[in-house]
Amino acid sequence: MPELRLDPVTGRWVLVATERARRPKDFAQQDAAAGKARPERSDTCPFCPGNEKQTPPEVFSFRRDGTGPDEPGWWVRGVPNKYPALTWEPTIQASTAGIFSVRPAIGAHEVIIESPLHNASPATMSYDEMAEVVRAYIHRYRALSEAPDIQYILVFRNHGRDAGASLEHPHSQIAAVPLVPPVVLEELVGAEHHHESTGRCVFCDMVQQEIESGVRIVLETPKFVALEPYASKMPFETWVLPKAHGPSFHELDPSSWHELARVLVDVLGAVNTGLHDPPYNYILHTAPPHERCDGFYHWHIEIFPKLTVAAGFEFGMGVYINITTPESAAEFLRNYIPGGPSGRNSGVQGQY
Amino acid sequence: MPELRLDPVTGRWVLVATERARRPKDFAQQDAAAGKARPERSDTCPFCPGNEKQTPPEVFSFRRDGTGPDEPGWWVRGVPNKYPALTWEPTIQASTAGIFSVRPAIGAHEVIIESPLHNASPATMSYDEMAEVVRAYIHRYRALSEAPDIQYILVFRNHGRDAGASLEHPHSQIAAVPLVPPVVLEELVGAEHHHESTGRCVFCDMVQQEIESGVRIVLETPKFVALEPYASKMPFETWVLPKAHGPSFHELDPSSWHELARVLVDVLGAVNTGLHDPPYNYILHTAPPHERCDGFYHWHIEIFPKLTVAAGFEFGMGVYINITTPESAAEFLRNYIPGGPSGRNSGVQGQY
Repeated sequence: MPELRLDPVTGRWVLVATERARRPKDFAQQDAAAGKARPERSDTCPFCPGNEKQTPPEVFSFRRDGTGPDEPGWWVRGVPNKYPALTWEPTIQASTAGIFSVRPAIGAHEVIIESPLHNASPATMSYDEMAEVVRAYIHRYRALSEAPDIQYILVFRNHGRDAGASLEHPHSQIAAVPLVPPVVLEELVGAEHHHESTGRCVFCDMVQQEIESGVRIVLETPKFVALEPYASKMPFETWVLPKAHGPSFHELDPSSWHELARVLVDVLGAVNTGLHDPPYNYILHTAPPHERCDGFYHWHIEIFPKLTVAAGFEFGMGVYINITTPESAAEFLRNYIPGGPSGRNSGVQGQY
Repeated sequence: MPELRLDPVTGRWVLVATERARRPKDFAQQDAAAGKARPERSDTCPFCPGNEKQTPPEVFSFRRDGTGPDEPGWWVRGVPNKYPALTWEPTIQASTAGIFSVRPAIGAHEVIIESPLHNASPATMSYDEMAEVVRAYIHRYRALSEAPDIQYILVFRNHGRDAGASLEHPHSQIAAVPLVPPVVLEELVGAEHHHESTGRCVFCDMVQQEIESGVRIVLETPKFVALEPYASKMPFETWVLPKAHGPSFHELDPSSWHELARVLVDVLGAVNTGLHDPPYNYILHTAPPHERCDGFYHWHIEIFPKLTVAAGFEFGMGVYINITTPESAAEFLRNYIPGGPSGRNSGVQGQY
């Protein structure tokens, strides 16, 4: 059903997926209950334990011994998206008519349910719980990257209705897509250009220069840094980067998973506390599984709190107006990091 | 104060303009008054007649004989944006530090107040009133394109708070910017490529192919067509294109201004009525004033009703998921065009 249509002017693809118009929306209830604490369980939530039959059969789960698929007993669970933007079973064929081209949107679109608790959130999870979410990302990334015709695996999270989440229960999404995304391609081209002209990775240069200046650093740990990028597109845009060069997230050594989880929890916790639980998106940027970019690409996670609205200027230009400097955003967020702000260098590192 | 920062990875510019955080917001009042008819005049609105001193001095106005600048008596009025994203007086110099580069955001950022009536809207204006807005766009476009260092003039409109409007009083914006926007550059590259391989303008091909098929046409008049593009990025995305080839909006013959105004009023009226006054953005796409693209570029206006939320998938991919086919959107909107839907070819044309 979903199809990829080619824009005849720009050559960009658009995904037309009318099935997604039928997604349930439980935020109406949430709004009605505004001010009330969110419950640990919701009878009507398809992601809550006991409601496993309301989702398609699970593709994996981390669960207690003695429990079976699509039963309670899991702590992280992966299921196909019931309203997918991509499918393995195409119902159309690639075709061209005049200047218009279409092809099937082949791929996978899955949900990773991050917790059995309806009211959990990465901002308030334990480090151990978040480490299991990281493990789930890597587990599922590896499985999907083996699939035929797949050019990229997108791992992302929408938090809050205004950031595009249709269900409140904490979940991430993972999409296996049959093209290298234009956003990633633009990074690859820029990073390769930097590598050709300097012999270095632009992200490694960024990490080093930012640690030296310190003004845009939110959190530094032995293996990771969280920073507000110099050319932040939006207020409080935050990137989490590994200090060690590595193109591919899924090749991260298991000994680093827990530290990454701690950084994510601490940074999302600072966003949640300092900015009063804003909607946000985060997106994993990693090398396409079949591209050679070992020397110049460097995986990272980009977090976008949704505090402003992109409008005509942004749509018409492709240039964002950011009304908050990344320096002031970093200074603000450091106050909400455990052990910060004075502990930015020594104190916070000491906890890791 | 505003500055352009270069993203060291992608080479994209970001505009950091902290002044804009101080913009007034009168939609809070509007929300409080939800359900009430909006008044023709608001004492606190800086764009209402009688409050001219609350804006910077006007740069032009269309006004009654015998009235002077910054007095009532105007029907369209242009003023500098009080919270500009670009200015003629740079307070910083271009500089580079390591991988980071910055330059002043030189240019103009103006507001075109479209009506003295606080509650007017292009969707409900008379054709004659909207024709004066079109005349104002062209008047101001021509003046700003003469300015030094200017590479592009962006004309756009934000309607409704969720589309980024901070003031309710009907207004458009015009920005003179010191770079060719990436969005426009992408169109130029694609259109030039099509021209090189076929000898034709891709927009002319689009107009012809769409008129022949009819399925995505919203409105056709002797000189213009309004259509849902084949690869619509969002539900009810609508483009207005002149049938005759022409790269530059500001060279449109005055004999066509009124017909363009009618098309805009009818299409925005259909959006307003059919979709219950949604927020929207529209953006003029026109050739950069100093680029040679006569043969292959074709100006047009892109309208984006804001009915869905771009989320992690769109941010991470640069590929939009559209949950409504452009064919069904066109069929729907035709019902709300005066004389439509049966009059799409003969009836509606007959009025022009």
